[in-house]
Amino acid sequence: MLTMMKELVFVGLGLNDEYGITLKGLEEIKTANTVFMETYTSRMPDFNIQHLEKLCDKKIQLITRQTLEEENGKQILQAAQTGKTIFLVPGDPFIATTHITLRIDAQKIGIPTRIIHGISIMSAIVSLSGLHNYKFGKTVTVPFPETSAQTPYNVIAQNKKSGLHTLCLLDLKEPENRYLTINQAIKTLQTIEQQKQQNIITQDTVALGVARAGSNQPTLKADFIKNLTNFNFGMPPYSLIFPGDLHFMEIDALIAFADAPIELKRLSFK
Amino acid sequence: MLTMMKELVFVGLGLNDEYGITLKGLEEIKTANTVFMETYTSRMPDFNIQHLEKLCDKKIQLITRQTLEEENGKQILQAAQTGKTIFLVPGDPFIATTHITLRIDAQKIGIPTRIIHGISIMSAIVSLSGLHNYKFGKTVTVPFPETSAQTPYNVIAQNKKSGLHTLCLLDLKEPENRYLTINQAIKTLQTIEQQKQQNIITQDTVALGVARAGSNQPTLKADFIKNLTNFNFGMPPYSLIFPGDLHFMEIDALIAFADAPIELKRLSFK
Repeated sequence: MLTMMKELVFVGLGLNDEYGITLKGLEEIKTANTVFMETYTSRMPDFNIQHLEKLCDKKIQLITRQTLEEENGKQILQAAQTGKTIFLVPGDPFIATTHITLRIDAQKIGIPTRIIHGISIMSAIVSLSGLHNYKFGKTVTVPFPETSAQTPYNVIAQNKKSGLHTLCLLDLKEPENRYLTINQAIKTLQTIEQQKQQNIITQDTVALGVARAGSNQPTLKADFIKNLTNFNFGMPPYSLIFPGDLHFMEIDALIAFADAPIELKRLSFK
Repeated sequence: MLTMMKELVFVGLGLNDEYGITLKGLEEIKTANTVFMETYTSRMPDFNIQHLEKLCDKKIQLITRQTLEEENGKQILQAAQTGKTIFLVPGDPFIATTHITLRIDAQKIGIPTRIIHGISIMSAIVSLSGLHNYKFGKTVTVPFPETSAQTPYNVIAQNKKSGLHTLCLLDLKEPENRYLTINQAIKTLQTIEQQKQQNIITQDTVALGVARAGSNQPTLKADFIKNLTNFNFGMPPYSLIFPGDLHFMEIDALIAFADAPIELKRLSFK
């Protein structure tokens, strides 16, 4: 059933493979005139586009960051003006801020938009960790070492001061297949520690590394920084949590789900 | 295909109806021995359990908060010791902290656990709003007025001080079908404002109310508090965002997606 109503529907693909989409998302694709997809805002390790095309019985057009930026989404907007158009985005469509402009532009020229949500890395990591959601402060991205921004260090420091956990997303350059590793991110933060000397990232700071959140085999490891720097997390994508004050139930969760050392129990967290 | 491997898999149902589950989640149910579900940690407005049973061709056993708490999840753990058992939870299974203990208990007695993530209210609201994800501070729940906790007010104040947005979840008592409305939540916060006089919640404070995030017809309305208190948001569930410093692109998004007054553009936010 094809609809001729002009419409742009942003559909989240979730985190890992073509089974991360919701039943609702799949149904929306089936009734679309045109389907676009981007794969550059996030990595979906086991995604197979041909298989998704089979599942929804539609041709999916891949769109690169360059194309989308150079033509300001013209291809997508033109398609949406003639009929129902889907834009498939990894994770949840607007957790990365990348596509908000496209949605605003569509509304401005009278194209109705809708969102079919997808699993976001933000909630998946919190959920996997067993840490309490309402105890997370501001999220931050740790960039590659060539940029020497102190923002991530300052955000962790500020959150810790309020007893809050910090979720650090680690930078990636998907077209180059380049991912900041957990070890590299820790080193970047240690370099800033040496400059600022605020005892935020020491050898005895506890952190939780997460690899491949949302996949069938995520790896979680919580430990003191000194033990974490040589841990092998396997394949990307990666993220890193710096806990603030830990409730005893959160410590139990880190021991049960992230192989944290029993020693954590003896730490006098507030 | 039934597996005899003991295992407890927590599967997120997402936000609105039986189509909010991922393809992966549905496949997991199909290969389970036993399927439990709870509906009390969150409201799924259009959910139909009989229809989900048809989709996965399994009998689903509803479990109440009382049963789960009284017997510490004994029923679920016993089932998981004899074969693959699914526990269906609204949203993402561990964004509410309710079931973390059950997962820890399962691991302690040697039952492997896995998580199949679901769409979480946390990311859906951020995504719908067009506000920038990395500018959200700590999340807070606004309780019913019979508890006079000042925490929500203090969290909004603290976040604003750092220029950060605050996502307020509004309390609900699902078995009694009782939901704190956006208007009631604003009134609760105004009462605390009268006591504390910090100019955090004034008539000219901007807020964004969201009803039925993740449904086919969410309602969003951003405006000054004075205009928001009489707005009709329709059916629950509800949530409320108090923005911190707004980027001009965030203001554009609030105007485009949340019918905010053009006047917002003239406000001198940092």
